[in-house]
Amino acid sequence: MTAASHVLERWQEVAPGVWRATVGQPEALSPRALLSAAGVRPRHDALAHLPSAPFPLPLGQVSAEVTSHRTVFRLPLDPEEKLLGLGLQLFTVNHRGRTRYLRVNSDPRQDTGETHAPVPFYVSTRGYGVFVDTARIVTFYGGSCVRRGEVVEVRDRNSDRQWRATPPSRWVELVLGAPGAELYVLAGPTVLDVVCRYNLFWGGGVLPPRWGLGFWHRTPSLADAQQVLAEAREYRRRDFPCDVIGLEPGWQSRSYPCTYVWSSERFPEPASLVSTLREEGFRVNLWEHPYVSPESPIYRELEPLSGSHTVWGGLVPDFTLSEVQEAYMALHQREHVSIGVAGYKIDECDGSELTRHSWMFPAHASFPSGNDGEQMRQVYGLLLQTMAAKLFRQNNRRTYGLVRASGLGASSLPFVLYTDLYDLRQFVRALCNASLCGLLFTPEVRSARSAEEWVRRLQIVCFSPLAQLNAWSSGTKPWSFPEVEDMVRHFIQLRMRLLPYFHAAFARYQAQGLPPFRAMALEWPELAEVDDQYMAGDALLVAPLFPGQTEREVVLPPGRWYDFDTGQAFAGNRRIAVAGGLERLPLFVREGGLIPLMPPLPHAPGLGAAVPLEVRHYGQQPARLLLPDDDDETSVAAPERQGSLILAVDVLADGTRCGRVEVQGVPGGTYGPVTWQFLG
Amino acid sequence: MTAASHVLERWQEVAPGVWRATVGQPEALSPRALLSAAGVRPRHDALAHLPSAPFPLPLGQVSAEVTSHRTVFRLPLDPEEKLLGLGLQLFTVNHRGRTRYLRVNSDPRQDTGETHAPVPFYVSTRGYGVFVDTARIVTFYGGSCVRRGEVVEVRDRNSDRQWRATPPSRWVELVLGAPGAELYVLAGPTVLDVVCRYNLFWGGGVLPPRWGLGFWHRTPSLADAQQVLAEAREYRRRDFPCDVIGLEPGWQSRSYPCTYVWSSERFPEPASLVSTLREEGFRVNLWEHPYVSPESPIYRELEPLSGSHTVWGGLVPDFTLSEVQEAYMALHQREHVSIGVAGYKIDECDGSELTRHSWMFPAHASFPSGNDGEQMRQVYGLLLQTMAAKLFRQNNRRTYGLVRASGLGASSLPFVLYTDLYDLRQFVRALCNASLCGLLFTPEVRSARSAEEWVRRLQIVCFSPLAQLNAWSSGTKPWSFPEVEDMVRHFIQLRMRLLPYFHAAFARYQAQGLPPFRAMALEWPELAEVDDQYMAGDALLVAPLFPGQTEREVVLPPGRWYDFDTGQAFAGNRRIAVAGGLERLPLFVREGGLIPLMPPLPHAPGLGAAVPLEVRHYGQQPARLLLPDDDDETSVAAPERQGSLILAVDVLADGTRCGRVEVQGVPGGTYGPVTWQFLG
Repeated sequence: MTAASHVLERWQEVAPGVWRATVGQPEALSPRALLSAAGVRPRHDALAHLPSAPFPLPLGQVSAEVTSHRTVFRLPLDPEEKLLGLGLQLFTVNHRGRTRYLRVNSDPRQDTGETHAPVPFYVSTRGYGVFVDTARIVTFYGGSCVRRGEVVEVRDRNSDRQWRATPPSRWVELVLGAPGAELYVLAGPTVLDVVCRYNLFWGGGVLPPRWGLGFWHRTPSLADAQQVLAEAREYRRRDFPCDVIGLEPGWQSRSYPCTYVWSSERFPEPASLVSTLREEGFRVNLWEHPYVSPESPIYRELEPLSGSHTVWGGLVPDFTLSEVQEAYMALHQREHVSIGVAGYKIDECDGSELTRHSWMFPAHASFPSGNDGEQMRQVYGLLLQTMAAKLFRQNNRRTYGLVRASGLGASSLPFVLYTDLYDLRQFVRALCNASLCGLLFTPEVRSARSAEEWVRRLQIVCFSPLAQLNAWSSGTKPWSFPEVEDMVRHFIQLRMRLLPYFHAAFARYQAQGLPPFRAMALEWPELAEVDDQYMAGDALLVAPLFPGQTEREVVLPPGRWYDFDTGQAFAGNRRIAVAGGLERLPLFVREGGLIPLMPPLPHAPGLGAAVPLEVRHYGQQPARLLLPDDDDETSVAAPERQGSLILAVDVLADGTRCGRVEVQGVPGGTYGPVTWQFLG
Repeated sequence: MTAASHVLERWQEVAPGVWRATVGQPEALSPRALLSAAGVRPRHDALAHLPSAPFPLPLGQVSAEVTSHRTVFRLPLDPEEKLLGLGLQLFTVNHRGRTRYLRVNSDPRQDTGETHAPVPFYVSTRGYGVFVDTARIVTFYGGSCVRRGEVVEVRDRNSDRQWRATPPSRWVELVLGAPGAELYVLAGPTVLDVVCRYNLFWGGGVLPPRWGLGFWHRTPSLADAQQVLAEAREYRRRDFPCDVIGLEPGWQSRSYPCTYVWSSERFPEPASLVSTLREEGFRVNLWEHPYVSPESPIYRELEPLSGSHTVWGGLVPDFTLSEVQEAYMALHQREHVSIGVAGYKIDECDGSELTRHSWMFPAHASFPSGNDGEQMRQVYGLLLQTMAAKLFRQNNRRTYGLVRASGLGASSLPFVLYTDLYDLRQFVRALCNASLCGLLFTPEVRSARSAEEWVRRLQIVCFSPLAQLNAWSSGTKPWSFPEVEDMVRHFIQLRMRLLPYFHAAFARYQAQGLPPFRAMALEWPELAEVDDQYMAGDALLVAPLFPGQTEREVVLPPGRWYDFDTGQAFAGNRRIAVAGGLERLPLFVREGGLIPLMPPLPHAPGLGAAVPLEVRHYGQQPARLLLPDDDDETSVAAPERQGSLILAVDVLADGTRCGRVEVQGVPGGTYGPVTWQFLG
């Protein structure tokens, strides 16, 4: 059991500011291995543009011990540094002094570190990052376990109120059940640099098609084609924007486990439904999970290529095998993609051990590839995302979808996380934490106990990576609370008006790794624990009011800030109180913020739509924003189509502001006349 | 990872009705190994008296797979059987269809299987038992994971309301992280036989000294000698029985971590305090935890003999080493036992990973013995209990105490489990579940939000293995709610009056392995899921009313039952409604029940006390009860003192009942004149 600890001396700089040390015999299956097999490569070009920085940790103080089945990494900590990240954490932002069990789990009801998307990557407020490339569960001790010999202040609980249950250690320990792994260290110098570096190392961020940034609606599970069409058209009739209609389990002939084949009873003519919806400006997203029904056409073929255990009587395919991916993709191509389905919601790929819903293949399950259940469960979400991404890439089409499990290195994958939990405060924290690890999270709306809760939830989801009403069970609609229908319409329309702005933010995510929605910690580490407000894009600070609140405190970072609507200026670097009724979502724009707005179209515009833009500029700083205007449909836009608009504001000596539009490449004509509005 | 599964063919009958199969290379540290090192031996004599039964499982269907670091056992299930046990489970009785992670954990807030005392032993309602002798965490799949090839009914969740999140499997899988282990199978034929067999295999049940069955009070953490004495005397002044005064952390010079040395400030003369209390009929119990303060006299000696990590800055001694036990016991002998301390409350030996109180040595900690943190944490509670038991045995004295972690094979150890959680409904369930695994649990009282809750909690704790008010933090007293002081006095006095009855029940626990407090499931498996009522001794059915209840349903098993106070008869094998005010604790006595009562003395009687007994008999069945009357103090009573009274009731042809008293050995004269009362 015991093993000698040795200092890690051989650090290889595998990309600018990214160093790797190999310990023991790393296992073949790891996020890095499966993502590079899927074509994900570090963006060396963009990485080179980040500030150069030396190896950020004291060499000679990073050590490891390895046995035949356990690897322990040990890294030093300063007393003051905070540790952020570790994936889609719902309860905590700063993991300093805490032990986290980073297992994929669909029921993260306690603050143990388990979540839909645990990521063995942490960012220090000192401006460096660390991750372990492993498919194993990692236990993270963020200064929460103390070795004999390490001097800690021993306090007398009888008399000392400063006594704490967890004495602070100056060491991180990372533990996994494998005979080795690769440890990566990322330089900053800033927290934001670390995270951009992380995202660029993993291929940069995803750039969704514009329609992905519109409003999403999911219909009831057993709705048939007529009901689906009726629900979609009701959006148009009531003048609520909507871009995507999501179909839930009932679209399949059988599900739980899945056939991946349409229900001939509820959907006799899927192709015509999909094309009718498309003509009316809706894309179709299909729910599914990875467990294959005995009635699925691919069951026989996949049976020998599946795990030792089943889930709900369905096969657990070994998606690390190319034959499995081929069979799966072929069926999806034939049944869905070929008729125009735009993406998937990949559910149930996480697993739970809680009493009332204990389900998943066990950790000791074995797979034909030789991997075991622990490894497969940890990376199942990644495998499914890369496979779906590949399917659409092969069709030269873009996609954007939902997934319930993810992990290390997912920034370039076109999927957004969600959960069945429903605490709104946790939702906002999760949205913040996701931005520290290359993840996207939607605080989806399902139902509400009151009109107030309904409005507050919709305000927040409209300022998230995926604005979705998921009514599969509740059957709710945006207008379900008539007394606030206009208010809800206002915010969904505001989402649409901001679509160019959000699209530009995602373009920076793709090109520079800059998260489109982000925790305050990313730019202001001193605000690490502020988790009830966040940045949407570069310019907007969102400080939502939660149900029950008519007033809240907002932390304004340094610099001048402006009210989004009125342009009223606020001195930053302080806490202010904001009050407001249900109609109010406090939005502040930073000095020099540039925000392009389009009219509240019923759905995202396509090439040549020539949509007029109103561009708002706040304050006295010059500004510049790149707004993609490519064809937005093909997976890699044809070169002659890789166009963008560059919106810029110059400030003259006398303070006059002038806006101009530059063109880059050949714009697709999505946007038309630009009018400028100068506030603040 | 994958390993061939092989059928277990070599089963050795190691004791009557107990079979063992060895798989792979079992690790040296296991409950069996450490308990036999502590002198715990199977009670072959008593085991031979149990009904003989064949190997209870289909040979050829029990299999195992082993790798260098994982062992998986697989055992068959019938569709109908229920699986009970697995330790101190607070949430669930029947673990069929569930996955349980059997890790020691001080914060079992979710139904995952983690608890203070997980036990890898389950009892089937079909009448057999299974345990794994390992110091590793065992993951139990009670028909909750399905192998490919096993036929399960695949249901369509879209249309079938019978769909379940966990499809029922007909196999148990037991998984642990070691290259082998010993698997034991126990015969019944009844559930009660299985549990008696289990307890006798582990040396039989503990027989506490009579004072251990009196009332216990724990004083506030920082109370000094004068306050302790004052609190104790207040019990006498108010005529509330009390046998044990428990001192909390403040008795030590420093604690968290512990010195094990008296605070000279709060306890300048511990010896005189202990003897004064003893003269007034109180025993002293000392709180401690196992982590050694740098200021403890044994710190230097233990430092090289401790684990790689510390807890609260204290050493984590490697108690598998005899030198460590010797040093620890020597200090305890000198400081406590030599001056008359009667026992310990061994706290904090479990550990938690939850945010707010994340503390414990990690699973990857290493110990001089070569064991790792996972193993040590799983058996730490057992090691501490055996060490304390040995200390008192060496002094030829009996002890009875509290511990917060335990495990496999603990039935003969003189300790009762407790928890910091406080849900009364869970407390009663835990008390029931403990009885299935050779554990004892106290639903200790600490505080209450109302007089009603106060009374209900005290009613229940008075019918448990250890009747304790733990006021270390709350400072409460039995009379803290003056409006119900008389009611509370009544039940604490009833506890004292029943002391001979409970003592007799424990005698059967020791001699025959029969749990003194037990789940309905033990005698009536068809009532396995009835977990809000239980048997106290052989004759009493306790059906407590919970806060908020003025009426409840009671399940009366087959046979006639009688109201404890009035003798009113009830036909059994049905559910009845009982109503009652706060003063009412529904107690039913089975047909032929024999209940000796003594007067409500202020504390337990000693040798020669000649306490008069009132013996109640219910119904028309003859009865017989063995009541120990030995010296009750020495660890093994001198032979000439191993006396008992046998209370018997004969029923003559005309239905007349006659009671008689037989003598066995040389009674110690604890009890005097016997009067008989015939009810029903």
